[in-house]
Amino acid sequence: MNFSSDNVSPICPEILSAIAAESESAALPYGADDKSQQLDAAFSELFGTEVAVVPVATGTAANLIGLSGLVSPFGGVVCHHRAHINMTESTGVAFYGGGTKLLGLDGPSAKIEAATLDSFLTAHSPNGMHSVDPECVAITQTTEFGTVYTVNEVHAIGSVCQKHDMRLFMDGARFANAVAALECHPADITWKAGVDVLSFGATKNGALAVDAIILFDPELRRHTEKSRKRGGHLFSKHRYLAAQLLAYVQDDLWLRNARHANDAAMTLMDSLQSLGAKAAFAPQGNELFIHMNDDLAKTLRDAGIVFRPWASIGPDAYRFVCAWNSPTDLIRDLGKTIAG
Amino acid sequence: MNFSSDNVSPICPEILSAIAAESESAALPYGADDKSQQLDAAFSELFGTEVAVVPVATGTAANLIGLSGLVSPFGGVVCHHRAHINMTESTGVAFYGGGTKLLGLDGPSAKIEAATLDSFLTAHSPNGMHSVDPECVAITQTTEFGTVYTVNEVHAIGSVCQKHDMRLFMDGARFANAVAALECHPADITWKAGVDVLSFGATKNGALAVDAIILFDPELRRHTEKSRKRGGHLFSKHRYLAAQLLAYVQDDLWLRNARHANDAAMTLMDSLQSLGAKAAFAPQGNELFIHMNDDLAKTLRDAGIVFRPWASIGPDAYRFVCAWNSPTDLIRDLGKTIAG
Amino acid sequence: MNFSSDNVSPICPEILSAIAAESESAALPYGADDKSQQLDAAFSELFGTEVAVVPVATGTAANLIGLSGLVSPFGGVVCHHRAHINMTESTGVAFYGGGTKLLGLDGPSAKIEAATLDSFLTAHSPNGMHSVDPECVAITQTTEFGTVYTVNEVHAIGSVCQKHDMRLFMDGARFANAVAALECHPADITWKAGVDVLSFGATKNGALAVDAIILFDPELRRHTEKSRKRGGHLFSKHRYLAAQLLAYVQDDLWLRNARHANDAAMTLMDSLQSLGAKAAFAPQGNELFIHMNDDLAKTLRDAGIVFRPWASIGPDAYRFVCAWNSPTDLIRDLGKTIAG
Amino acid sequence: MNFSSDNVSPICPEILSAIAAESESAALPYGADDKSQQLDAAFSELFGTEVAVVPVATGTAANLIGLSGLVSPFGGVVCHHRAHINMTESTGVAFYGGGTKLLGLDGPSAKIEAATLDSFLTAHSPNGMHSVDPECVAITQTTEFGTVYTVNEVHAIGSVCQKHDMRLFMDGARFANAVAALECHPADITWKAGVDVLSFGATKNGALAVDAIILFDPELRRHTEKSRKRGGHLFSKHRYLAAQLLAYVQDDLWLRNARHANDAAMTLMDSLQSLGAKAAFAPQGNELFIHMNDDLAKTLRDAGIVFRPWASIGPDAYRFVCAWNSPTDLIRDLGKTIAG
Repeated sequence: MNFSSDNVSPICPEILSAIAAESESAALPYGADDKSQQLDAAFSELFGTEVAVVPVATGTAANLIGLSGLVSPFGGVVCHHRAHINMTESTGVAFYGGGTKLLGLDGPSAKIEAATLDSFLTAHSPNGMHSVDPECVAITQTTEFGTVYTVNEVHAIGSVCQKHDMRLFMDGARFANAVAALECHPADITWKAGVDVLSFGATKNGALAVDAIILFDPELRRHTEKSRKRGGHLFSKHRYLAAQLLAYVQDDLWLRNARHANDAAMTLMDSLQSLGAKAAFAPQGNELFIHMNDDLAKTLRDAGIVFRPWASIGPDAYRFVCAWNSPTDLIRDLGKTIAG
Repeated sequence: MNFSSDNVSPICPEILSAIAAESESAALPYGADDKSQQLDAAFSELFGTEVAVVPVATGTAANLIGLSGLVSPFGGVVCHHRAHINMTESTGVAFYGGGTKLLGLDGPSAKIEAATLDSFLTAHSPNGMHSVDPECVAITQTTEFGTVYTVNEVHAIGSVCQKHDMRLFMDGARFANAVAALECHPADITWKAGVDVLSFGATKNGALAVDAIILFDPELRRHTEKSRKRGGHLFSKHRYLAAQLLAYVQDDLWLRNARHANDAAMTLMDSLQSLGAKAAFAPQGNELFIHMNDDLAKTLRDAGIVFRPWASIGPDAYRFVCAWNSPTDLIRDLGKTIAG
Repeated sequence: MNFSSDNVSPICPEILSAIAAESESAALPYGADDKSQQLDAAFSELFGTEVAVVPVATGTAANLIGLSGLVSPFGGVVCHHRAHINMTESTGVAFYGGGTKLLGLDGPSAKIEAATLDSFLTAHSPNGMHSVDPECVAITQTTEFGTVYTVNEVHAIGSVCQKHDMRLFMDGARFANAVAALECHPADITWKAGVDVLSFGATKNGALAVDAIILFDPELRRHTEKSRKRGGHLFSKHRYLAAQLLAYVQDDLWLRNARHANDAAMTLMDSLQSLGAKAAFAPQGNELFIHMNDDLAKTLRDAGIVFRPWASIGPDAYRFVCAWNSPTDLIRDLGKTIAG
Repeated sequence: MNFSSDNVSPICPEILSAIAAESESAALPYGADDKSQQLDAAFSELFGTEVAVVPVATGTAANLIGLSGLVSPFGGVVCHHRAHINMTESTGVAFYGGGTKLLGLDGPSAKIEAATLDSFLTAHSPNGMHSVDPECVAITQTTEFGTVYTVNEVHAIGSVCQKHDMRLFMDGARFANAVAALECHPADITWKAGVDVLSFGATKNGALAVDAIILFDPELRRHTEKSRKRGGHLFSKHRYLAAQLLAYVQDDLWLRNARHANDAAMTLMDSLQSLGAKAAFAPQGNELFIHMNDDLAKTLRDAGIVFRPWASIGPDAYRFVCAWNSPTDLIRDLGKTIAG
């Protein structure tokens, strides 16, 4: 069993079928095809408000291009130190933003707290010519430590952003897992809380390669599309991005996949705890961060279980990630399997 | 029949199968999987020399990232005015190059001629602080007007580049069509002629979305991979790029597809000429640029034939593009079909 | 006598005095000093409309920073092929614009003609995602070949810009020479003709080092000041830029210096013509572009006259530039001196 | 008395004379003049090794352009959180570096400690594709809190840089004050300790506007000069930069000015302490950071003393800066003056 990441999982059958179904006929390129034309409507219905959808093939592209519409080349993006955009996306934010700087905050379990954010923004004198003014706040849902901002927490951050005239971006590489965990409407943690742009991840949750930039302010579409084209992210066979996304939201596939992954993670947590592991953070989505001793780690590895050490949490810390296809029954019986 | 572009064609069966075959199991992300690890060897064999392969999902990304390793932020890329990088890739060259400027040359049928290039480079004083020095030459094979640089022509350009200490880049969005037309070895028009980097297109010729940056100087790998990551083009499920490419070069699929498209184009040329059209350029690959009168254009449209006007050649000019799946029999019988 | 450029001339006495006068006391940095605070009013009076003034130390900086507020990273600046921003400012426009591309036009004597501009802009389809849309037009006054746009010509270009929703920038490195030649009000060839931003040159015309970015749309101030700071062009001892500029416009020093240079150039033209030289362009400002044979060129050089060949006009072409301190009497007697 | 910054001071007489002396004659532009040609030799003698000198007009430009040769667009510059490049230069490092990221470290009195640096660099896994690798270390001498790295401290940092294959940059906006305080040879805290590039400040210490980029690796010259030109920082009347710098280093003017400022600061510290103020950091150069109560602050202000609050140190913290022209006698009698 491979828990090293959800990106080791393959395409799910529904999305593979949607790709295959596109292989029968010709279609206009660059988003002019029928499938692509359905995206705005499909996601506007999903979110209960008018949105513009700009799909790209990777989560990093969705973050970088999505953010670039919310901040100037002279401005800063406030994020958690652990944010993917700060730790794992090279110098991409400055690249797509034309210089944009990341301003890191601390906070428990990779979450920014509204009060901390408020203090930080208050301390920054506005309009400084010499320093970098914050212009945007970015949060990750679920976070880099697998925790989930509650509906109230997102709203509190949104209020602070409104107070300080900041735009709000959400990195939703695992947005589906968050919605599944919160059992909320996707609107509750996005536009209703003041989120301007969401990167809506599908790649980790069953797609081949597609993440959608969801613009709750459709006026951002022009900039976003220009930035996408300029970055080399406009697909000629755009219909294949659209087909993946439409299949992903049809009949709640995105939530079904996410629920499966979340449930598998909870089951895995139980199994690991029964073997002596301890949660580093209360697990909420499909990622587990745990502490365990070397013996247990070795036992698991010897049993063919794949997972990764996570040194930033501690020398005895590890990450396990479940996906849409994680084998829940085998996970439940992990103890027995190991006892072998 | 849709001849508006080869990017309206779907995935070919072999590549769809390769994608589907990846949907059985887990695999390491970001290029650490088995399929991705086979790319360098497969393309080194194909080209008969050691190459490094960096796949991306679009031809624009392949061009922009590939070029960025060959030119400084203060330097210029010499290309034909009609080059895709100059006409159709937004400000991407400056973006990925950190300022890099395009220096356009004229030449017949969208080709740069070696003598013209030599004169241009000779006229430029080197090392100027104020002006933009050429540092790289970029050619397109097949060209934007569907013509093909002969082996000798590419070698002549390579010699001029060597004389002036220029790097040489080839935009090979339709490289397969060129090799098929020339009936040469792929090495003959690339590294043996001095090409440093090739964007090796597959998307237009049967893939879902993948073009490979082929580095004939493997020392460029580190920069190229960093540029790819920073641009948001590193796929987590990298194996799907690799699977497409491996299927594409297996058993000469890339050449079989290209030969089909080229043959279809030649057949279409015959059919169109018999109806009164005239070639704007001698057709060599899978693209036709023709002149025809309004009556013929209307007749074709009424018969359900899709194609595009091409105003840059003239008010009576049109482009027809064939693909790996173009129906050669129907094309041969075009006259009859229209006569209906 | 050195006619190689007007930038070989030293500081004029009035400006040197103004610098020296600042050397008595402390003053607030970064533009908060009294002299800097007078700039907006002084130039608003000079131009007869409210302007914002952002001084920098070089003409290239004034052009690059001034332009950057008028065009997006995805857009193009239409200029004459010979424009300083296209020929002599490295990749600066793309640098400060975040990718901005230069789109070169031809035209006689380094001038863009309104009709040519109109055709060019009409031919460009707006809102294209793939190509670079023109967003701004830049003209140089006096031009790179020493000619001067008439008041009507600037208005005609301004009308074309308005028709196509383009911003209009003027590179005024030798603006004073143009106003002196035209005997017009500075408003006549700037905001009244639709110019949005002017780089108002002083360095070549008697200053140590200062060119002012004049914003006829004061809303551009914030971007321009941020771009200046980010580019490292905000002087801590900003008062020395202000002192130069205030002295430069006081009592029409800028026009007196320019008239002197223009008159010297006309006198020089007469002297050179009497020696057999021919004007390449009708001289209007302080620059002469002439044709002469090798014998005359040698004779002049042997007499200690310094000037530069100008190969872009022809193998027998040369440039002579007069400045605020050119010795008119010696110039008038050039024939005698040489005969000497 | 104005202690708000050393940049409120005017030009010192020797430098003003040097500027005036340049106002007699013509000279070649862009650094081809005699004075500019003397710079390399003058600074090579000063530092006791071969250096290349690239002068610019501001300290920010010197930092940004100087750094840009030492780090790639994908790399990071490790600096103290309080560093001028991190706090007060907008997004300039990313701008000139093409994306380069700042990686902030803590340390007492705005100093990076060698052991902290070593730990930080050791913790960073090299060659990561996703994260930003450190490529360069930047220190400020004197620091942003007015303290001075000892010769041993700089050497220790240099050793850590060598160990981890990092380039080393020194922001020397107040380099003269550091050398004066340490009574060392300028080589001792630069190239002998492994510094690759130094921004050698003159503006704050008596010049009108010039800071020199000193390249201890002359191979960096080409990149540095290209970056300077592209940024709009190449002066046409380059001789005025050179004249300032030559006067600045002649007869140890730079050290005499710095010693005066340092001595004035020490005298001021005594006076302030006798009035009840306390040093926040042991004063070493020409900057004082002190704590004092509101009453004393008011008394000083009422006496016409100008200084700035420094909130980042504390609500009762203030900065006083002395300059080459600070009135030492008045400063010594500050207590009496206030007692009035």
